[in-house]
Amino acid sequence: MRWVRYGVGGKETFGIVEGDQIVDVQGDPFDGYQRTATSRALANTKLLAPVMPRTFYAAGLNYADHVIAAANKRGELPNLPEAADVGYRAVNSITGHDDPIIVPADATEQLQYEGEIVVVIGEEVKNLTEETVWDCILGYTIGNDVSERTWQRGDRTMWRGKNTDTFAPMGPWIETDLDLEAAMTTVYINGKEKITFKTTSMIFGIAEFLIRMSQYCTLYPRDVVWMGTEGVTDNMVNGDICEVEIKGIGVLRNPVVWEGR
Amino acid sequence: MRWVRYGVGGKETFGIVEGDQIVDVQGDPFDGYQRTATSRALANTKLLAPVMPRTFYAAGLNYADHVIAAANKRGELPNLPEAADVGYRAVNSITGHDDPIIVPADATEQLQYEGEIVVVIGEEVKNLTEETVWDCILGYTIGNDVSERTWQRGDRTMWRGKNTDTFAPMGPWIETDLDLEAAMTTVYINGKEKITFKTTSMIFGIAEFLIRMSQYCTLYPRDVVWMGTEGVTDNMVNGDICEVEIKGIGVLRNPVVWEGR
Repeated sequence: MRWVRYGVGGKETFGIVEGDQIVDVQGDPFDGYQRTATSRALANTKLLAPVMPRTFYAAGLNYADHVIAAANKRGELPNLPEAADVGYRAVNSITGHDDPIIVPADATEQLQYEGEIVVVIGEEVKNLTEETVWDCILGYTIGNDVSERTWQRGDRTMWRGKNTDTFAPMGPWIETDLDLEAAMTTVYINGKEKITFKTTSMIFGIAEFLIRMSQYCTLYPRDVVWMGTEGVTDNMVNGDICEVEIKGIGVLRNPVVWEGR
Repeated sequence: MRWVRYGVGGKETFGIVEGDQIVDVQGDPFDGYQRTATSRALANTKLLAPVMPRTFYAAGLNYADHVIAAANKRGELPNLPEAADVGYRAVNSITGHDDPIIVPADATEQLQYEGEIVVVIGEEVKNLTEETVWDCILGYTIGNDVSERTWQRGDRTMWRGKNTDTFAPMGPWIETDLDLEAAMTTVYINGKEKITFKTTSMIFGIAEFLIRMSQYCTLYPRDVVWMGTEGVTDNMVNGDICEVEIKGIGVLRNPVVWEGR
């Protein structure tokens, strides 16, 4: 099942994608819903980010080649994380499928994509185990963890390097039935493939992260966990179209709009 | 005006404190409200954290003596921050006035309070200036940024060191009329004063933080910004009562309950 979110008469509504149509629901996938008799063309509907999270978690460095590439760029030895220590992002940075990534005029040219899978939590849970961990997941969507590397390195925190408005496109929908092992992630710039990686080739897997997090932190419906990206990332320029595809979910597409260019 | 939040028949309600009474309102201080004819005794009402934030910002190291004391403990030279770079916390960690700080059994004895003032944003704003910055603030409340220092130092992020469930008591209410310059912060353990500091003696003040943040990040109603703490902090043990008082706001009180002790 594919969950989308969109505006109807100024109100945010959830719907279910069926073929080229969206079926409106009353309620939402977190607190319960009922299908309505109303449907609309998917192609004509402006999608919002499929969920506004309660807490926006991000795994950070979670693929070995990405950690090694980043260290090489800094002329340092790679320092692989030793435990699944999660980080945080800010809700203001979230934007939807087809929305522009708006880059402030004072950003440097080191403005890069990071394609990643996003876990959407569907239940309030604590102390998850190997047996229970998968049941709390509503589904998966796609994130582009847009990063301005100069700010990321130079600031004391990643506040504007990764949390500037529109730097966290998420969507297009939440896929509830995903064959994780078959899911490949590919990033395209202007239709040209930049990188492809096996989505599950993480240093710490989804289950490992959620089990560890939930020993100390209650997870809630609408929490999202961005799982990190792999490999070398590259700069984007004004006018680029960035697409992140995860097989079995879909394609998240966003144009880059640089202020003042 | 003092805004409180509490449960009525399983539903969260906002109210206004008047003397020893709370006046229920319809709506809330963010989207608009109307007073009702219903009131209740403040002393008999279990208060919730006065707001559940959209994004939970934290200034981090923002008082000179605290930065110096922390560096001394680590045997390092202090490294004062050069810019107002904000960080993030997780909503799961928030709890209310009089709620227990529940410490996991595997925490070390380095479990410490951090009393701080909390700015509550009331409007959606961007590109704030010296002239406009104060108008977006609904009011101020009190936070206790409970920190397990072993986890804070040892983990790659501050996820469990500062974001374990109940590690962010906030309350008791939002005070909309505060003389900031007169506001002193005092932390008491079991009634004994541990530290008193001038709340505005920050490295980067409230206006400076909000103006800088809003150049890149839209601030939204219900966002909160915890402004950091001053001085040397000390360990708390099972059964301690921690109180954070800010003159002009009130007292945030929480008992420490250590699991398995």
